[in-house]
Amino acid sequence: MKTNTGRFFEDYSIGQVIDHACPRTLGSGERALYHALYPSRHALYSSDLFAQSCGLKLSPIDDLIVFHIVFGKSVPDVSINAVANLGYAETRWLAAVYPGDTLRSRSTVIGLKQNSSGKTGVIWVKTEGFNQENTMVISFIRWVMVRKKGPMDVSFKTTVPKLKNVLSASELSIPESLTFDSYNKVLSGSSYFLNDYQIGEIIDHADGVTVTESEHVMATRLWQNTAKVHFDTTARSDGRRLIYGGHVISMARALSFNGLANMQIIAAINGGSHANPCFAGDTIYAWSEVLDTAQTRISSIGAIRLRLVATKGAVGLLRDENNKYYDDVFLDLDYWAFVPI
Amino acid sequence: MKTNTGRFFEDYSIGQVIDHACPRTLGSGERALYHALYPSRHALYSSDLFAQSCGLKLSPIDDLIVFHIVFGKSVPDVSINAVANLGYAETRWLAAVYPGDTLRSRSTVIGLKQNSSGKTGVIWVKTEGFNQENTMVISFIRWVMVRKKGPMDVSFKTTVPKLKNVLSASELSIPESLTFDSYNKVLSGSSYFLNDYQIGEIIDHADGVTVTESEHVMATRLWQNTAKVHFDTTARSDGRRLIYGGHVISMARALSFNGLANMQIIAAINGGSHANPCFAGDTIYAWSEVLDTAQTRISSIGAIRLRLVATKGAVGLLRDENNKYYDDVFLDLDYWAFVPI
Amino acid sequence: MKTNTGRFFEDYSIGQVIDHACPRTLGSGERALYHALYPSRHALYSSDLFAQSCGLKLSPIDDLIVFHIVFGKSVPDVSINAVANLGYAETRWLAAVYPGDTLRSRSTVIGLKQNSSGKTGVIWVKTEGFNQENTMVISFIRWVMVRKKGPMDVSFKTTVPKLKNVLSASELSIPESLTFDSYNKVLSGSSYFLNDYQIGEIIDHADGVTVTESEHVMATRLWQNTAKVHFDTTARSDGRRLIYGGHVISMARALSFNGLANMQIIAAINGGSHANPCFAGDTIYAWSEVLDTAQTRISSIGAIRLRLVATKGAVGLLRDENNKYYDDVFLDLDYWAFVPI
Repeated sequence: MKTNTGRFFEDYSIGQVIDHACPRTLGSGERALYHALYPSRHALYSSDLFAQSCGLKLSPIDDLIVFHIVFGKSVPDVSINAVANLGYAETRWLAAVYPGDTLRSRSTVIGLKQNSSGKTGVIWVKTEGFNQENTMVISFIRWVMVRKKGPMDVSFKTTVPKLKNVLSASELSIPESLTFDSYNKVLSGSSYFLNDYQIGEIIDHADGVTVTESEHVMATRLWQNTAKVHFDTTARSDGRRLIYGGHVISMARALSFNGLANMQIIAAINGGSHANPCFAGDTIYAWSEVLDTAQTRISSIGAIRLRLVATKGAVGLLRDENNKYYDDVFLDLDYWAFVPI
Repeated sequence: MKTNTGRFFEDYSIGQVIDHACPRTLGSGERALYHALYPSRHALYSSDLFAQSCGLKLSPIDDLIVFHIVFGKSVPDVSINAVANLGYAETRWLAAVYPGDTLRSRSTVIGLKQNSSGKTGVIWVKTEGFNQENTMVISFIRWVMVRKKGPMDVSFKTTVPKLKNVLSASELSIPESLTFDSYNKVLSGSSYFLNDYQIGEIIDHADGVTVTESEHVMATRLWQNTAKVHFDTTARSDGRRLIYGGHVISMARALSFNGLANMQIIAAINGGSHANPCFAGDTIYAWSEVLDTAQTRISSIGAIRLRLVATKGAVGLLRDENNKYYDDVFLDLDYWAFVPI
Repeated sequence: MKTNTGRFFEDYSIGQVIDHACPRTLGSGERALYHALYPSRHALYSSDLFAQSCGLKLSPIDDLIVFHIVFGKSVPDVSINAVANLGYAETRWLAAVYPGDTLRSRSTVIGLKQNSSGKTGVIWVKTEGFNQENTMVISFIRWVMVRKKGPMDVSFKTTVPKLKNVLSASELSIPESLTFDSYNKVLSGSSYFLNDYQIGEIIDHADGVTVTESEHVMATRLWQNTAKVHFDTTARSDGRRLIYGGHVISMARALSFNGLANMQIIAAINGGSHANPCFAGDTIYAWSEVLDTAQTRISSIGAIRLRLVATKGAVGLLRDENNKYYDDVFLDLDYWAFVPI
């Protein structure tokens, strides 16, 4: 069978390393498309001059492009037949990616557990992205439920990795030579720095975007993500194309400019829930909550931990009395960003 | 309040200078997207070789991209909450923009007038775009109606700037080193030069484009224009997204290739009316009328003043007996272009 | 009449050379858009490093982009008013095209025949694309039915060119310095080389893509193809926009990655039928049949001749008992590709 039909639970083993196909050279085209697909305005990813004023050689490729590309490459080997994407943790950006860089992606199996149904199991993989100099640029862990080929194996040894719910600020990786010493708050669009934000503060990002079919499929395809449910209207019984969760993340992050314009760089994602599916026609709004703030080893650079919520509903509403997400909520993301002090 | 909710009439004063956020480096990605979004075929903006044969170092970034980018940056500070965009004048392109250039945008308040309703006022701004060498690349004036915070201020000193209805050909700025001495009319797609056009002549551009939702939102977002009505279907009571007027300008200009293929460069826009709103599903056709012709200081370069009309109706029909635009008309634009003599 | 309204049968003569307008410089933007519009994953067109490991200086512009661009330029001069696109033959890629290259297009009339109706005729043209160094990069023959201005001319001398149904493997042009000696089958996504495929073998490419209106018009416009039926919903009596046949070719080729990941380079297209029109809302699937295999003069490079079928129906079904294509079939393409041995 020359066609890839995806792996089953039995095709994975602890320590197995899977090099994913189709390395990708990124350029100014991907950057322009990102600006056409998301209302992205963070100055560091828009202007070479602004990036240079922050110590970088050029405006880097958007953090989330790097995530989507490295994630997308893992889909055919990890999640093309997944019954469910269960979660992700410990996403860390480790080096800036520039136009002209070529990324490849690799996953290592770090956890395996059969489900009691006997029909499925859970696999945990650590996925890492590398540039052309073999520098690791991103790393994340995710776990998915996959189908089993055979019945329950009673002798199977379960391995469940110990994951951090939250990375500490000291574990964040600051891009080489980054500084906010000469930060231009007029050009960045906001005068609010780290110390202007209080833990518990809620920020309404005000703007909304109604999602169209063409845009989300173009975005998802650009990352060479091939999961059928995003592209083929016959893949789900309701005839609707499920929007890639990463599209909602990028949309919410871009909307968050309005209120968080100085949260220039995403340093890490602690975790996230795609609370409800998103479909074309939905209008996405976003709000954020400040969860933590911290110093870093560079005096001009602070770290801020934020909850980013994408919703079609009201600001501040997340879960009901039973701790269940409201139907309006698309995304509940917990991440760290770098911001001037 | 960390979220930008826009300015009120009282937030502006004569002489006030507003530096707009989010400078932008433009590259081959924006150019490719422009070709995907508009049927743009003017050879100077399509081929480096053709541009070099006209004395330029490379094919420049399309004039209208420069306009959209510089305009888009002014939206959050000038028109995000505008009740109405009333007009624009004296748009002049002052220097060519090349891939790799970084643009920023700045507006100066040049006029203020309270409306008799007491609830709104009109502001006039002069908006200027600059490249990374601080060379001014474009300049235009526009005026918008904005809400007032307080009641009518009877002591308020009204300032209404004196604007030119039409720039004279001598005020146009010819890009440095431009020449049409070795102009290739086979590759440009037309053998008609300045002297082949008569004042009063009407040109039917023949082709039509049916506009889709995804395309206009991608275009508008690419310019980092954040006006809600273009993106959020809940922003208007009819649930429709208003198409950015600049999208109609770019579409009509691109369609005008068929008949005006040698009008390579837009030198100035004297003014324009967005006669009726445009929505997804509308089919845009275009026709032009020659309003004036002129020599320039370069013997091979002529200037032609054109009326460009975007319409879903018949060629040549513009206003009814009461001087009101027909419902079919989207755009009535008055501009100068450079064309070989 | 300054507007191009297209040529009639009488406007063509044997040996006539038509240089098409609007040369085009291609860059990383067109490449990124191609990845957003098609699920293209062949590693040679995705990664500079992979291309360099195959002896090329950089990742070239996708073969089909080159075809679409050179074809698109010929539309206003050859087929804008065509009654029907009848066929194409002997499409050969002759040199790799890289970002920064500028392409122009030229057609020579090689055949003319009046139809018995007296109202139309058939013209055959050989269209060639050249880069900025005047190297021919692609060549193909196509024939279209066009309207006549006058009545049947009984003295007209008919010329029907002799065309090859199939090019032989020895006629294929291998890109300069290409080698598959150090081919990385992990990064390419498949371990199947030339000798793993048997003549007559059928490969199901498994994935499907539901086509949207915005995507096909953006794609077609990107190639500066101006045929009305693709853009203007009023151009056909059913109000639907006909999807450019080349969009279906690119979609099917991209889908064929799943099963044919190592068929890196399209060397030639022997011919093809657009069996049924494709419209937005259709879901395109693809399957291939191996028609032939051959050695080339380079020991690491094999040639494989494939039938590529785009369909909304079942794998393997092509024609009914009367040799008529099933209604489900969009495309039946016969091409040669280069693949490692």
